[in-house]
Amino acid sequence: MSFLKDSIKKIKAPDKIMYEAAKERLRNQARPVGSLGILEDVSARLAGIFRKIDVNLDKKIIITCAGDHGVCAEGVSLFPSEVTRQMVYNFVNGGASVSVLAAHAGADVKAADLGVDWDFEPDLPVFHKKVRKGTGNFAVEPAMTLEQAEKSVEAGIEIVGELVAKGPVHLLGTGDMGIGNTTPSTAIISVYSGLPAAQLTGRGTGIDDDAIKKKIAVIEKGLALHKPDPKNPLDVLSKIGGLEIGGLAGLVIGAAVYGIPVVCDGFIATAGALIGCEIAPPARDYLFASHNSAEIGHRFMLKHLGLTPLLDLGFRLGEGTGAALAMELIDASTRILADIKTFEEVGISDAQ
Amino acid sequence: MSFLKDSIKKIKAPDKIMYEAAKERLRNQARPVGSLGILEDVSARLAGIFRKIDVNLDKKIIITCAGDHGVCAEGVSLFPSEVTRQMVYNFVNGGASVSVLAAHAGADVKAADLGVDWDFEPDLPVFHKKVRKGTGNFAVEPAMTLEQAEKSVEAGIEIVGELVAKGPVHLLGTGDMGIGNTTPSTAIISVYSGLPAAQLTGRGTGIDDDAIKKKIAVIEKGLALHKPDPKNPLDVLSKIGGLEIGGLAGLVIGAAVYGIPVVCDGFIATAGALIGCEIAPPARDYLFASHNSAEIGHRFMLKHLGLTPLLDLGFRLGEGTGAALAMELIDASTRILADIKTFEEVGISDAQ
Repeated sequence: MSFLKDSIKKIKAPDKIMYEAAKERLRNQARPVGSLGILEDVSARLAGIFRKIDVNLDKKIIITCAGDHGVCAEGVSLFPSEVTRQMVYNFVNGGASVSVLAAHAGADVKAADLGVDWDFEPDLPVFHKKVRKGTGNFAVEPAMTLEQAEKSVEAGIEIVGELVAKGPVHLLGTGDMGIGNTTPSTAIISVYSGLPAAQLTGRGTGIDDDAIKKKIAVIEKGLALHKPDPKNPLDVLSKIGGLEIGGLAGLVIGAAVYGIPVVCDGFIATAGALIGCEIAPPARDYLFASHNSAEIGHRFMLKHLGLTPLLDLGFRLGEGTGAALAMELIDASTRILADIKTFEEVGISDAQ
Repeated sequence: MSFLKDSIKKIKAPDKIMYEAAKERLRNQARPVGSLGILEDVSARLAGIFRKIDVNLDKKIIITCAGDHGVCAEGVSLFPSEVTRQMVYNFVNGGASVSVLAAHAGADVKAADLGVDWDFEPDLPVFHKKVRKGTGNFAVEPAMTLEQAEKSVEAGIEIVGELVAKGPVHLLGTGDMGIGNTTPSTAIISVYSGLPAAQLTGRGTGIDDDAIKKKIAVIEKGLALHKPDPKNPLDVLSKIGGLEIGGLAGLVIGAAVYGIPVVCDGFIATAGALIGCEIAPPARDYLFASHNSAEIGHRFMLKHLGLTPLLDLGFRLGEGTGAALAMELIDASTRILADIKTFEEVGISDAQ
């Protein structure tokens, strides 16, 4: 059996009884029933995952998966591909946007090279998981082979295993870096939503109307050429996906394997999460959505996954920035469940 | 000149040049322009308020204003009035919802008695600013006199002055406690939006369809009886408002007087903020909206104030719970502006 299939078999469901016990405690707290909205369900899901009411999320880490994209040859992005590798160094040096927001959330950040078109120094403190140097241009050839797609997903699972081997991880965040990667992400949600690229394509880092038209045409061309099969997520990933997207799928599966809640970032990280949950549906129980991306295709991904995002701040950055901010709210939800007293505990009159 | 009028004259506008300098730095950071959405503008506004780029919001405090409501005699709330005073003790003891979420945000909480129908012990650590013991039932009489309305607003300003006298305050949050207070808040937004109560009335702490009909009728009766004049916000406050709502208005004015940013909580705190900004329009420059309340009238208040809320989590609790969570995002925005490096600082290729 492959490492991937073997991993999927290890995923256990969260504890339903503890989830219900959490819901009961939330109902009895000295406040109107349901008055803390969607954070209540977040806290109950975490209780189910950790099998206790007083959940501690002290150790948080965001893994930012990086990869390059052959489809950039079609002119789909505003930034040159070399920015992908430059940003990996920026993550290492702590000067990137995700570094700043993760620090605020009390989370570590570590980059992972899944497929950057660059030879990083072997001692650079990143996860060295390069499957190949960038994808093929999916407008004219498959992004990668089926074996490479599987390897990228397995790399994500391995990363979680390596993290857990070093010490406890209470909350995992996912983020992306890959110039051009809104294009494969849009192609993926087009496959799973059945909607045309024209309805799903956004401005990425800020392209203009002409560039959007080109981007739509490139996606349509790739989909027509490869006919990816939504029933086979590795087929989709290999034909029109990305190496970091495979890694992001693997992180979500790996989190579920090790019983760790995982919060995915925006458009690209959610594309990875979607592929991950298509490969391993039980992983969905460990997955939380951080925010609504400004990319229009994102809402269709969240709908497909059945997830409600915690934030809607107009972010369209990636890297794990949305995941970092959402970690603060997820952490707050644990305090809601454990620390707000019940009517009985404080002796206050309940509703009439 | 009255203390209120004298205070309003002291409000200075934030620094426009520093606001623009902040916008310029945000544009040059090594990320797509505008990619951190609404937090970018929050950070620039804070730069203007504090007249510097690297803003420190270490000292945060939430003031939860409490008052009782004569209109409860009409059966508009699910909870008995005695809960107002019980909750004040709960705030003091740190067991309330806002206590828990403020602790998570690194903020202090202090309750203020503007008009609770109860004699608190003089040494209870709250702001003792009782104007009267609960409002009159506005379905049959004015909620309070014009003098009492002015006094409640002045009490809010005094609270900020007393806080500042004790040490620096970097971010103020407002919250409310007052059984029945969605009813006057709905009446206030009906006056300012010109929309009928039927379109604005929500379920408060969770009343059923019959109770909503009664609540709408009570608001309509009060508005027809008193005809509050939207051009005279103290007239509105006195006729159909609340004592804690006056205090909340005063907190917003006081924050502006002392040059402190202030984040208002949900439906009731925003009703107070609206009254505050009607009394003192320059206070608006210091005001931030924390979240979208589940109360339907809230969106019309935010529209009237021209504010974009940071969160939309389905909260309908009050106390300052939404303000507490939003403080974490506001704090994060200061790190975005000051700590994310520019393209030049990190030597990364800008957009083509």
